[in-house]
Amino acid sequence: MSTDNRRLAELAGHDAFVHRHNGPGTADVEAMLATLGVESMPALIDKTIPAGIRLGRELDLDPPRGEAESLTYLKRLARQNKVFKTYIGQGYYNTHTPAVILRNVLENPGWYTAYTPYQPEIAQGRLEGLLNFQQMVMDLTGMDLANASLLDEATAAAEAMALCHRANKKVKSDRFFVADDVFPQTLDVLRTRAAYLDIELVVDAAERVAEHEVFGALFQYPGDTGRIHDLGALIAQASERRAMTCVAADLMSLALLKEPGALGADIVLGNSQRFGVPMGFGGPHAAFFAATDKLKRSIPGRIIGVSKDSRGNTALRMAMQTREQHIRREKATSNICTAQALLANIAGFYAVYHGAEGIRTIATRIHRLTSILAEGLRRKGVALENTSWFDTLTLTGVDAGKIHGRALTHEVNLRFHADGRVGVSLDETTTPADVAVLFDVLLGEEHDLSVSALDDAVIAENLGGIPEGQTRESAYLTHPNFTRYRSETEMLRYLKRLENRDLSLTHAMIPLGSCTMKLNATSEMIPITWPEFANIHPFAPRDQAVGYKQMIDELSAFLVEITGYDHISMQPNSGAQGEYAGLVAIRRYQAAQGQGHRDICLIPSSAHGTNPASAAMAHMKVVVVECDERGNIDIDDLRAKVEQHSERLSAIMITYPSTHGVFEETVREVCRLVHDHGGQVYIDGANMNAQVGITRPGDFGGDVSHLNLHKTFCIPHGGGGPGMGPIGVKAHLAPFVSNHVVTPIAGVREDSGAVAAAAFGSASILPISWAYIKMMGARGLREATELAILNANYIARRLEAHYPVLYRGVNGTVAHECIIDIRPLKADSGISEEDIAKRLMDYGFHAPTMSFPVPGTLMIEPTESESLFEIDRFCDAMIAIREEIRRVEAGEWPQDNNPLVNAPHTMADLMDAAWERPYDRELGAFPSEAVKAAKVWPAVNRVDNVFGDRNLICSCPSIDAYRD
Amino acid sequence: MSTDNRRLAELAGHDAFVHRHNGPGTADVEAMLATLGVESMPALIDKTIPAGIRLGRELDLDPPRGEAESLTYLKRLARQNKVFKTYIGQGYYNTHTPAVILRNVLENPGWYTAYTPYQPEIAQGRLEGLLNFQQMVMDLTGMDLANASLLDEATAAAEAMALCHRANKKVKSDRFFVADDVFPQTLDVLRTRAAYLDIELVVDAAERVAEHEVFGALFQYPGDTGRIHDLGALIAQASERRAMTCVAADLMSLALLKEPGALGADIVLGNSQRFGVPMGFGGPHAAFFAATDKLKRSIPGRIIGVSKDSRGNTALRMAMQTREQHIRREKATSNICTAQALLANIAGFYAVYHGAEGIRTIATRIHRLTSILAEGLRRKGVALENTSWFDTLTLTGVDAGKIHGRALTHEVNLRFHADGRVGVSLDETTTPADVAVLFDVLLGEEHDLSVSALDDAVIAENLGGIPEGQTRESAYLTHPNFTRYRSETEMLRYLKRLENRDLSLTHAMIPLGSCTMKLNATSEMIPITWPEFANIHPFAPRDQAVGYKQMIDELSAFLVEITGYDHISMQPNSGAQGEYAGLVAIRRYQAAQGQGHRDICLIPSSAHGTNPASAAMAHMKVVVVECDERGNIDIDDLRAKVEQHSERLSAIMITYPSTHGVFEETVREVCRLVHDHGGQVYIDGANMNAQVGITRPGDFGGDVSHLNLHKTFCIPHGGGGPGMGPIGVKAHLAPFVSNHVVTPIAGVREDSGAVAAAAFGSASILPISWAYIKMMGARGLREATELAILNANYIARRLEAHYPVLYRGVNGTVAHECIIDIRPLKADSGISEEDIAKRLMDYGFHAPTMSFPVPGTLMIEPTESESLFEIDRFCDAMIAIREEIRRVEAGEWPQDNNPLVNAPHTMADLMDAAWERPYDRELGAFPSEAVKAAKVWPAVNRVDNVFGDRNLICSCPSIDAYRD
Repeated sequence: MSTDNRRLAELAGHDAFVHRHNGPGTADVEAMLATLGVESMPALIDKTIPAGIRLGRELDLDPPRGEAESLTYLKRLARQNKVFKTYIGQGYYNTHTPAVILRNVLENPGWYTAYTPYQPEIAQGRLEGLLNFQQMVMDLTGMDLANASLLDEATAAAEAMALCHRANKKVKSDRFFVADDVFPQTLDVLRTRAAYLDIELVVDAAERVAEHEVFGALFQYPGDTGRIHDLGALIAQASERRAMTCVAADLMSLALLKEPGALGADIVLGNSQRFGVPMGFGGPHAAFFAATDKLKRSIPGRIIGVSKDSRGNTALRMAMQTREQHIRREKATSNICTAQALLANIAGFYAVYHGAEGIRTIATRIHRLTSILAEGLRRKGVALENTSWFDTLTLTGVDAGKIHGRALTHEVNLRFHADGRVGVSLDETTTPADVAVLFDVLLGEEHDLSVSALDDAVIAENLGGIPEGQTRESAYLTHPNFTRYRSETEMLRYLKRLENRDLSLTHAMIPLGSCTMKLNATSEMIPITWPEFANIHPFAPRDQAVGYKQMIDELSAFLVEITGYDHISMQPNSGAQGEYAGLVAIRRYQAAQGQGHRDICLIPSSAHGTNPASAAMAHMKVVVVECDERGNIDIDDLRAKVEQHSERLSAIMITYPSTHGVFEETVREVCRLVHDHGGQVYIDGANMNAQVGITRPGDFGGDVSHLNLHKTFCIPHGGGGPGMGPIGVKAHLAPFVSNHVVTPIAGVREDSGAVAAAAFGSASILPISWAYIKMMGARGLREATELAILNANYIARRLEAHYPVLYRGVNGTVAHECIIDIRPLKADSGISEEDIAKRLMDYGFHAPTMSFPVPGTLMIEPTESESLFEIDRFCDAMIAIREEIRRVEAGEWPQDNNPLVNAPHTMADLMDAAWERPYDRELGAFPSEAVKAAKVWPAVNRVDNVFGDRNLICSCPSIDAYRD
Repeated sequence: MSTDNRRLAELAGHDAFVHRHNGPGTADVEAMLATLGVESMPALIDKTIPAGIRLGRELDLDPPRGEAESLTYLKRLARQNKVFKTYIGQGYYNTHTPAVILRNVLENPGWYTAYTPYQPEIAQGRLEGLLNFQQMVMDLTGMDLANASLLDEATAAAEAMALCHRANKKVKSDRFFVADDVFPQTLDVLRTRAAYLDIELVVDAAERVAEHEVFGALFQYPGDTGRIHDLGALIAQASERRAMTCVAADLMSLALLKEPGALGADIVLGNSQRFGVPMGFGGPHAAFFAATDKLKRSIPGRIIGVSKDSRGNTALRMAMQTREQHIRREKATSNICTAQALLANIAGFYAVYHGAEGIRTIATRIHRLTSILAEGLRRKGVALENTSWFDTLTLTGVDAGKIHGRALTHEVNLRFHADGRVGVSLDETTTPADVAVLFDVLLGEEHDLSVSALDDAVIAENLGGIPEGQTRESAYLTHPNFTRYRSETEMLRYLKRLENRDLSLTHAMIPLGSCTMKLNATSEMIPITWPEFANIHPFAPRDQAVGYKQMIDELSAFLVEITGYDHISMQPNSGAQGEYAGLVAIRRYQAAQGQGHRDICLIPSSAHGTNPASAAMAHMKVVVVECDERGNIDIDDLRAKVEQHSERLSAIMITYPSTHGVFEETVREVCRLVHDHGGQVYIDGANMNAQVGITRPGDFGGDVSHLNLHKTFCIPHGGGGPGMGPIGVKAHLAPFVSNHVVTPIAGVREDSGAVAAAAFGSASILPISWAYIKMMGARGLREATELAILNANYIARRLEAHYPVLYRGVNGTVAHECIIDIRPLKADSGISEEDIAKRLMDYGFHAPTMSFPVPGTLMIEPTESESLFEIDRFCDAMIAIREEIRRVEAGEWPQDNNPLVNAPHTMADLMDAAWERPYDRELGAFPSEAVKAAKVWPAVNRVDNVFGDRNLICSCPSIDAYRD
């Protein structure tokens, strides 16, 4: 019977999500519009977004669903995934996420809503967590330094290759050796990356490394078949020929195997997934990257360092050496921005929780069970390709078809190689009973093997598969952080103590321009730890991932409608990766059109720093287009540049609305000019949240865009990752987006190599964006965009009497963020944007984005999720700070002793018996009623600011570094 | 094939739980034993626990299972439950727990590990949450006052009856009127309670209330059939005859119905479950209890009040008027102790999140859908017993068998009355599509009804079932707490702000003697919010609760083995309820033996205050047995008393080890003496955690014990509940434990009435205790007991040079807790145990139990879960405080101005520009390195201590109140 009419919609549910996601209520909106002197929301949008690019209709999406209904639907999808017992390995393994970490980190908004720790005084908790991760990696690999995570093992290998290419001055070669038993998905990504770095890959047996003149070499340890190479010998041979050596290592195996650092490796990289992070159909997980001390200024990504605060106390911070180095160089070689902070923290905590003896126990169990399996197979005459092993065996000469049939019966996944070999990888979840089932699957059920008897033999005859001399002898995880928190109570308190040092969205607005710190709703987060999403191997048979496919297809369809593109590629697992993938697609397309010579990429001076870095990685030459005094693209300059470079013009990369927070009226003309000269238009999706439901990049001229799902589409920032950066493309580019060598993607050319290790990137966090769109519906999404714009304009209005607001559109409005200029103030008072940022901590806020896109400014983005109450609280704080600055200007407070330069104030300050400051303690630490009621204490005083000048968002180099 | 040998056990898993639950590691244990001068753990146990009562073998339990394996097993059990769409109603309804509340309260250890807010300075967060609950209840019921929760609606009704019995001085009657459409499970509990209060129940149609001379009357609103009585008329009639009036009301219906307070009710009570708390097969949920102002000193349970702190700032506290009143009375009439604080907080937050308009929308949807259902049934000629309704319809003259068959097909649960009537109750999760399915179920699928058309009719013809004049007109939830937090972001921040005001086990040890604040492990907590446990109606057909039954049976078997009893009754949903249930079982048994005249209950002076209160409720006369100077039962006095009362001796209630923290050597003799005189032995299980695996109450003489699952068996305290108090009984008592009128329990006599509303009490938290036992195994449980004893003895040793330790066993050891005497100190310095308790907050700790069981003392219980690190930190704080006291004794600091009497120190203190104290700020607020690193700030200064003198544990009256 029909239950479908309009009035019944009132009865359909009461848990509409839009009112939960959006901050301002109806009365608030009216009050804010009144403040702006604008009569209605449509009038505000009319003033702000050029009429010529407006969509003019509601998006064509399903009606919004309530939170409960959406979760029910998603659970139904999830149940279409089948969680088999998986032994596929190949870089992804089952793992037990310790429950105390699962609940109190991965499922805790205190951890997942935090931002990248650019403001270290209110980020000491996650900085300590990341430092644990680095220490763990250094200990297990035996290397001097490690970073705090990369995106996945394959891209980490690509970064290693690029680093060797830059760093090896001793060998005049553009060839890079890759052992032929490196994981295939890693080789796939290396091929893509090498193609645009003018690197030639030499793929050969590891033992033949010395036969090639190469600048670097990559080995897998243990190898793809499970074999444990004599790594010391390989490294020695490569080093003999002056090649740098990279090792893609399994972190767990290093608990038992001699560490690569002791064998002379230059770089060790890999995936930390099996340290407590669910497989999640491919991600997110934290890749690690460790190197020798002499490479310390070249390591890609973020490095956490130990420093001091203004009281001389120890304080952690992001060291960011590599970014400075990049700025100094003519060209960037890495565009790394988002890391996998949340997952790195989890992997680090896994090591904290288990400690050295726990990790050794886990590794030993895995290895002993593998040895039992090997011995049983040997006794039954099964040939193994590898005679050494940690956790993986490769069977040859078996009847793979029969094994496959039995595996299905037992709901077991094995690795079936195309050539008939069968791989089995064990992990920490494997039990003796599981090994018994494996015998049944591999041998049929008539065998007479006993796991117990085999174990006796393994122990008695020392049948372990670790070659002599390759057993680890050195200690690891000896720091007290890895020995003290052994009981759940101690671990819980440690996690909470760290959480409570940090400011996250659970405390206050984080008004970071360009970063879009909106609500990460609980209902969006709940599905990602469901076992049906969490425990799927990325290379599991596709019929076990039907729910994933359906969810991804639906999300793709949503994003196609939202962007106006024809196709979405879900592979890139960060925004920067998406940029790179988009530019590579352009280059492939142009090459296929016989236009492969086109290599000029135009980038406006207002662009995000990642843009030129990505262009450089795609082997494009960056040409900067100037902006006019209003912050808009200088059309005359653009016209001149497209003329000048018409022959070689490959693309333009623009951000819309611009990074100056303005909807440029000329965007259609910009696109047309580039198209007229044979170029493609890349529209950076960083500011997509100001477009959704009102305008579409695919309509006004874009050929490709990446979408930061961790900005516009609610994936939490996780304290510095994960992210997801899928790209939308027009139909002509669709065949050229990334494919995947292990799990091919329909509709994409076979020779379109991968940009990430897994076909769908960090698939397990996609339900977040799916749920957001599903629960908001077309109207809700449009309202969110409108409110983001309203909130930003309201802030601009409230602050403009106190701080100059830079850049506005033709009608005087801003888009979804606004930039205030601190330079005049600084000239008068000596108070800098950094002082204001630190002083905001005393008021309980995270700073806005500093000095991006314009040095000496603050860029404020409230998002639609902030309520009028919170926005007013923030504006009040900013205005109070302005009054404080006035007292410095007036000479009432000295320039070197006032609440701003002394900020942030800590408990240590209040403890001082003598208080020799020209203001009182209350003004110092409790400058507002709100912080008196609920104070978020900075854990340390101001951390030294040598890195402050370049403290741009997302740790990417400034566009200035790319000017000729 | 076999995988089962001893060595393979090493391989079976690495996530052994025992090392996570227990705090001290092997090296710690050795160090602690060395400090004690005891050579080994067995030697310590030999010194502490009398040899004559020792078990002498390991408990016969399954081998311990790892965390992952236990969760997998439990998930398999859970999947045996079937989650049908349930319309049974009868006090339990489906509800959507808002996801932000689910994750950040119910699943958050910051909320669930907190203790009852006896120390208000570090409990302002949950006190505010509970105050919200009270305000919500007061608003919706229209009453002057409300308490902060009782155990369930049925026991709340029993409390109301008892209160009327005490309070109504105008009517000389022992008769209590119960309308015949009160929920059957409520009547069941009333019958049990009335039997031992000499109250006669009069059950009759509500309309005939005026025909009876009664001291009070109870109405259900709406009634059991769904009918909405003319409550105003009923109340008027009852009042006319001077009966007090009680209304068991549905809180949701009060959003639309005239509130009972406006109609003259004296007491309104009910269940707040449908405000966001899962049904959980019966509990836990918070019952509410509201009354008129003139009853304010008689309301049972805990009341949160608004007060001031020493700076004059507003501060919340538990007001506890009723307890004082009880102390003043000769006999207690309520033994209420544990409440349902966690669930009350959730229900209150549900109202905060939805606000008045949200609650009204939810109620209106429920009612409109019910009206649609009613109109459709009317059109099809189905007779309804009720012509008015909020959410429930009762169908008469239908073919219940056919409906039952169709319901099964559609996986729908209805209420099938024994007489063939069929009940349907709708709730907030019901949708128009669900109503369509209901028509299919109730009418068969050939009907031609359209929900849409019916809705048109309902709206157009105003077919709602609320009688004229009974529609609510007054406002509710108008306080700003119910209007401000409408977006998820605002709600999340509110929840986190409150959480961060409180000290919980996530911060530090909570060394509360007798309360056993041990680890509540995450793996134990995870299952309780699984839908298969959370969404089962307590009266669902038993074949839908097979998983529950299996889990409960297994837990019962574990507890039988652990206690040495023959049978476990899982019904009592608190420890006090268990005491009552056990004493009632004794009385029933004795009555069945023709010994019904036995009514003397012996209780040692050291007993917990709940004991005499429970005895009084079972209509027993309490006779106090004295203790000797060592704190042990004075055997001579006992001998005299059993002789004296031999004829009327019903039972003795003892606690073992005693509340003085000593394993009395004479326990067997005590039991024998009582048995010899025809009495039964009740052994209070409060200290069971000092026995598990070493001795069993069922072996050394107990006939019955309750087990505080929220102490020994890891159910978290939740900030003051939930709890569970199942009782173990010897076989002769088994037929006399509680049965249940709706869902009868096998093996129990039919006439054994219930003590709680649901057959298995708060069943949904039983997986916590199940998992604890399953993961620990026999040896792990014994080790936990040993470590609890070791930790307590270590503390006693470290503190004895600084504070006198009261009460030890014959060999100088204590059991699992120790009492330190503050009285001599206080005499010298004026510093009280309360000053020490408040000063401990400055050191980051919750106070030990104050003045129980001996006034002027502190009782410290570390539990096995605390690490040596934390125990040392606590001892260091206690010793530092002793040194501070010495400075007061020495006259260095005035008695009225020192860090102890000024404690706790707050941020407000540090803000003072002038600091006029004889010590500095650092000593005041940061007296240890630990708090400098991680400070838990008391939110307010010392709250006025008028209630301090009687600030006993668990809000129960002191034994002193029972002396003649």
